[in-house]
Amino acid sequence: MEARKIILTEDEMPRQWYNILADIKMNPPLGPDGPVSPDMLAPIFPMNLVEQEVSTERWIDIPEPVLDILRIWRPSPLVRATALEKALDTPAKIYYKNESVSPPGSHKPNTAVAQAYYNKEFGIEKITTETGAGQWGSALAFACSQFGLECKVYMVRISFDQKPYRKSMMATWGANCVASPSTETQSGRDVLAENPDTPGSLGIAISEAIEAAVSDESGKTRYSLGSVLNHVLLHQTIIGLEAKKQLEKIGEYPDIIIGCAGGGSNFAGLAFPFVLDKINGKEVEIYPVEPAACPTLTRAPFVYDHGDYAQKTPLLPMYSLGHRFVPPPVHAGGLRYHGMAPTVSQLVSEGLLEAKAVGQLATYKAGLLCARSEGIIPAPETNHALACVVDEAMKAKEEGKEKVILFNWSGHGLLDLMAYDKYFSNDLINYELSDEELQESEKIFENFPKPELLKSV
Amino acid sequence: MEARKIILTEDEMPRQWYNILADIKMNPPLGPDGPVSPDMLAPIFPMNLVEQEVSTERWIDIPEPVLDILRIWRPSPLVRATALEKALDTPAKIYYKNESVSPPGSHKPNTAVAQAYYNKEFGIEKITTETGAGQWGSALAFACSQFGLECKVYMVRISFDQKPYRKSMMATWGANCVASPSTETQSGRDVLAENPDTPGSLGIAISEAIEAAVSDESGKTRYSLGSVLNHVLLHQTIIGLEAKKQLEKIGEYPDIIIGCAGGGSNFAGLAFPFVLDKINGKEVEIYPVEPAACPTLTRAPFVYDHGDYAQKTPLLPMYSLGHRFVPPPVHAGGLRYHGMAPTVSQLVSEGLLEAKAVGQLATYKAGLLCARSEGIIPAPETNHALACVVDEAMKAKEEGKEKVILFNWSGHGLLDLMAYDKYFSNDLINYELSDEELQESEKIFENFPKPELLKSV
Repeated sequence: MEARKIILTEDEMPRQWYNILADIKMNPPLGPDGPVSPDMLAPIFPMNLVEQEVSTERWIDIPEPVLDILRIWRPSPLVRATALEKALDTPAKIYYKNESVSPPGSHKPNTAVAQAYYNKEFGIEKITTETGAGQWGSALAFACSQFGLECKVYMVRISFDQKPYRKSMMATWGANCVASPSTETQSGRDVLAENPDTPGSLGIAISEAIEAAVSDESGKTRYSLGSVLNHVLLHQTIIGLEAKKQLEKIGEYPDIIIGCAGGGSNFAGLAFPFVLDKINGKEVEIYPVEPAACPTLTRAPFVYDHGDYAQKTPLLPMYSLGHRFVPPPVHAGGLRYHGMAPTVSQLVSEGLLEAKAVGQLATYKAGLLCARSEGIIPAPETNHALACVVDEAMKAKEEGKEKVILFNWSGHGLLDLMAYDKYFSNDLINYELSDEELQESEKIFENFPKPELLKSV
Repeated sequence: MEARKIILTEDEMPRQWYNILADIKMNPPLGPDGPVSPDMLAPIFPMNLVEQEVSTERWIDIPEPVLDILRIWRPSPLVRATALEKALDTPAKIYYKNESVSPPGSHKPNTAVAQAYYNKEFGIEKITTETGAGQWGSALAFACSQFGLECKVYMVRISFDQKPYRKSMMATWGANCVASPSTETQSGRDVLAENPDTPGSLGIAISEAIEAAVSDESGKTRYSLGSVLNHVLLHQTIIGLEAKKQLEKIGEYPDIIIGCAGGGSNFAGLAFPFVLDKINGKEVEIYPVEPAACPTLTRAPFVYDHGDYAQKTPLLPMYSLGHRFVPPPVHAGGLRYHGMAPTVSQLVSEGLLEAKAVGQLATYKAGLLCARSEGIIPAPETNHALACVVDEAMKAKEEGKEKVILFNWSGHGLLDLMAYDKYFSNDLINYELSDEELQESEKIFENFPKPELLKSV
């Protein structure tokens, strides 16, 4: 029998992350008076992470204590999806990186562990953050428990209500989680005053978490973000670096690479090491997949925008639906973000990536097919990647081509089962943003500076 | 860095199960007219599994299609619990077999996959079963989806209410799950008539599932049990066989082996291959751990008793609290069983195993310690093993001995997080069976035959 899983030993784990800033041109983040300098970020992040955020070194060493904790579940398996291939009767060869095997159940702890480590090294005692679906908050709670740090999580209200177990999970790892907007911060109180019934958004929750960090006068609290930023995506590249090693072992290279994209971290984690090859001339198609309900890369403009609702972050060069945009309540909470990682945005603007959008119903259909063939119940976010994988595998069938498809199984759906229930009872709908909504959301950028169209390649 | 996980490749997976019936003497199961013959079980189980149930071959080949599906997650990692050792400051070396990595999250699919395969081979189209906490029902739902079989699950009412996500999980794999007692069977209706508010029990749910199987006139439905029976425990021995190989790789052999025990399957799966060594003269302590609320091995008599409430099963030689016993509603639903596997019972009666009982609060305390050190949130059942591991590690510390402890991390607790919530809010209590309750429960055996005290060694 051919092995289902291509396994690496702990010794074969990558010892360095890949930093794509070494290989692409970027518009700088902007503060009120021009480009942001590292010291302006010091109240928000520990300086060692700020330095990593702006570094242009191509390879950055993974500290030993970080590796030691990643080894609880890493290297993650690369799996040949033979059962899915059979179910689709496709000539395509489908591989996935199974990031659902981590204790919190997703790829998120890859960076949570690194961030907790750097905060601890810098003398920080407490970390605040936001979370959408809860994957990120859980991951940071897990990481903080490993390093003995206090952890406070602001969870988008609609996900908090849909997924009560997430709060329990964070509590089990010792973290405190509240629904956002909360009454604990000025940002939260302002939103509630305007709209008491808001489902919340990642943008609002980020504002709350930053406020809570910078307003702690002890100086021992910092904020942590689970996606979007350069250092976060950097930490995720261990996924793609492992996948490359694993594919090399069996003499394969992907024709198509697919990952779901909300802020961009699981997508970039898998894709960036292959983007490097593409920059160097290799032929490979790379598709970030987003919800049609929150079509940042596929329909929004490439602009300078704030990462959060209350404009607490610098202006970032990215595709954005506007920092006041509150996405429809799709169950893939992790993809309900108005913006996108600047690095992913830059690559899309250059045509190095080709973004796709899928409707909610197609994602659950694909997810169910995978649960019943490959056996693992996927997270609602992962279902977006799966819908695209199914499309590409069927195209390969039509074309009669043995394409090699690689995708990221970013997490399991064991804490999202209520969403599957709703799918079964036909209570889920396809949200699609109208042109009017889109135009309305764009007004917010009118007086903002515009990013340059840079060409890295 | 020393590896945290000792890994086997798919090629190194055991190709045979270990059958302990080759090495111990057993009282036979009894029907109304004496020992049960295989054909009497034919309406309940497919004959290929009945033959396996009574086989005394020491090694039984694992069919290739079963191995193929087990490879989705197997071989499971053997993990050195360095973080727990550090948290306890113990000289003991603690290893665990991580069975939480399967798609349903426990050891249960090891036998579910095998049983689904044998049923399919025999031409069966639908399988009925019971489930306590939901781990078994989920595992069988998963296995049936892999083989295209219909699956019906009767879930103990209290767990059904405590854990609504379990039903969704089974539905995602295409299975139908109802609360037991249900109105769908005569057994269920009888119990409800007598006690409409019953929390249910595994014994009642088993009666319902057997009735549903044998009353299907098409002849294409059979019943499946997730523990207790010889063939079920046989399929679980892959756990211990892998663990032995993994320990051999690092030159270790355990001084103490620990597993939680409800019906006995995860315990036996890890322990039986080592029991073989013990029978052959090796020194090793082996501890099944049960809830003080349901103290079958530690306080109940060794008797002949039915496996289910409605006396649909033969009389089995086992430690039992009586087939009408409804255990207190501890959250470890998988351990709420009135009896115990006959093979485990036989070994306890001979003194080859030393059973332990632990209170509910101690199990969550230990579980939380492990969640925050090793990083994985344990199932409430696993917490019973953990409480015993912590005790033994502390004893080793007092004695200053570098004992090697091996235990089975039987499942994760991601669908049991509400129980952790209750622990945090002090809503969990220690149930302990009183002597009066125990004496009362024993009356039921008065007119039953008594098992012989056999000596295998």
